[in-house]
Formats: sequence, C-alpha cells, structure tokens
Amino acid sequence: MPKLDLSRLPWRTGSGYPGKLAAEVGGRSVQPLGDPGGLSQFGVNIVRLEPGAMSSLRHYHMEQDEFVMVTEGTCTLIDDQGAHEMLPGDCAAFPAGDANGHHLVNRSDAPAAFLVVGTRTETDTAFYSDMDMKVTVTGRTFDFTRKDGSPLTADG
Amino acid sequence: MPKLDLSRLPWRTGSGYPGKLAAEVGGRSVQPLGDPGGLSQFGVNIVRLEPGAMSSLRHYHMEQDEFVMVTEGTCTLIDDQGAHEMLPGDCAAFPAGDANGHHLVNRSDAPAAFLVVGTRTETDTAFYSDMDMKVTVTGRTFDFTRKDGSPLTADG
Repeated sequence: MPKLDLSRLPWRTGSGYPGKLAAEVGGRSVQPLGDPGGLSQFGVNIVRLEPGAMSSLRHYHMEQDEFVMVTEGTCTLIDDQGAHEMLPGDCAAFPAGDANGHHLVNRSDAPAAFLVVGTRTETDTAFYSDMDMKVTVTGRTFDFTRKDGSPLTADG
Repeated sequence: MPKLDLSRLPWRTGSGYPGKLAAEVGGRSVQPLGDPGGLSQFGVNIVRLEPGAMSSLRHYHMEQDEFVMVTEGTCTLIDDQGAHEMLPGDCAAFPAGDANGHHLVNRSDAPAAFLVVGTRTETDTAFYSDMDMKVTVTGRTFDFTRKDGSPLTADG
C-alpha cells in the first residue's frame, strides 16, 4: 500500500554521536517514512524538534544531496551565512560536497518539524563545522574521528 | 544560499506526453525545487493541481524510487487498489520496480498541491497502467512507445 499511515509508523530518539555529543540532540525525534514505504535509493524522515532542540550537529555531506521542507512550527536554519527562519512550506537544499555546514534548530517555544530527504550512498563522509570531527560512513558503519582521521578523545 | 525563495522560483506547465495525451495533464503546474537548489541525485518538485487535474498518466518506474507528501488541499491517490484520499501531511512511497501504477488527481473544487521526490538515474523505464504505452528514458531523451516497443499510432 503506497499511502503511508503515519499514525502507525514508529518514532525513534537517541543518536549515534560518540560520547557526550549524543546529548546534543536531546529533544529530537525521528519518524522514518522512506524505509517503511520500501524505498532504498533515498531516505525520507520527519524530524520533530522540541523547543531548544537541534536536528543534528552542524555538518555537510560529501556524497549525499539533502533537502528539507518545514512542516510544522518555526525552524531556524543555521549555516555559514547565519540564521534563517523557516516556516511551514519553506525549503532548503544542500548539494553533496557544498562545504556549507547546516542544521535546523528550534528556537521557538512550540514544537517544530520538518521533512528531510537524503540520498542513500554506499559510502559518505560528513564534516562537522563547529568542531574537529568527521564521520566516515561505509554501509551501516559510522566511524567518527578527528578531521585528520585520528581518534577522538574521551570527551568527544 | 541553501534556503530557497519559493516566491521567485518559476513554474512550468505543459507536458512531454505525445500527441493528444499532453492535454491530459492540463491544469497541472510544476515548480522545480531541487534543480535550482543545486541537487542532482534526486529531483524535487511542487506539483499544483487545479480542480479536475491529474499529476500524470497513471504509471510506475522501474529504476526510480518516488515519494510524495501532500502540502495543500485534497489529493486522491489512484493505484491498483483503488482511490485513497490524501490531506496535507499525508505521504506515499512508490519503490522502483513495484508494478502498482499510481497518480494523484484533484477531485475537489479547490487547488491542491504536493511535494514529489524522485531519484535521478541515467536510464529508466516507466509503464503506463491504463494504456498500451511505456517510456524509455536515456539521459534527457524520452522515447514513448507501445509496451512491446513498437511505435505509437498518431492518436497516441
């Protein structure tokens, strides 16, 4: 059945970020839509942000296009150019390899949500703009290191 | 600038369907979002349907995943299982190769719109469910034929 029953699709919280960085995305919940719909070529999620929450650490992808549309509330897009308020229907596109790190934060006092689409690729590298960290992705394995490839220290 | 100014992005009407079939998608207008945002791995469009209009002839793709979210008004998804009403926020997923032809029609008396995402692949074949037609896509070339590959007749 192509039409998805969003009321029955599960949400997940938590993060794969190492160490104390996982706490940075508290207040974020994610509802996968593409996987339960049988899609494999790109991922589609609804991301819901409680007031004060962020979508991710600010980052950019080397191999994967990304697209977002706000669906609820007010999100603030933070990128190298500053802060950009986004309301329902507002969209942003992040081409693979464009070194303009971005994330969405909820600076309002009400919940906010957005739809996000990202290409599925066998490998990817993402760089984090505000810290010395990158992630190297191979299949389902995420290897977080410093940007020069050396190990992170215990405090992330 | 990743955030898109939708008020400045152009809309297009018309169709690449052969012969009189082009008229079938009168009342449909399309606003590309992915291309102006610099994306190349998947296409993203807003499709607006006037009352009575349809998104496309009912079809399925062999190589390209497709995803839709209704953003305005009421759309009716038609697939092999029948008619399914979709309201803003409702989503549907169409995996590549799933031979369940689909399209969205606006059976209401007000405009409707949806966001659609589809993978970009170098080649694709799409089959039309309600007529003896397929399209073979190579790059930017669309070759419409009967399902056995023979030419369409003049009346489409």
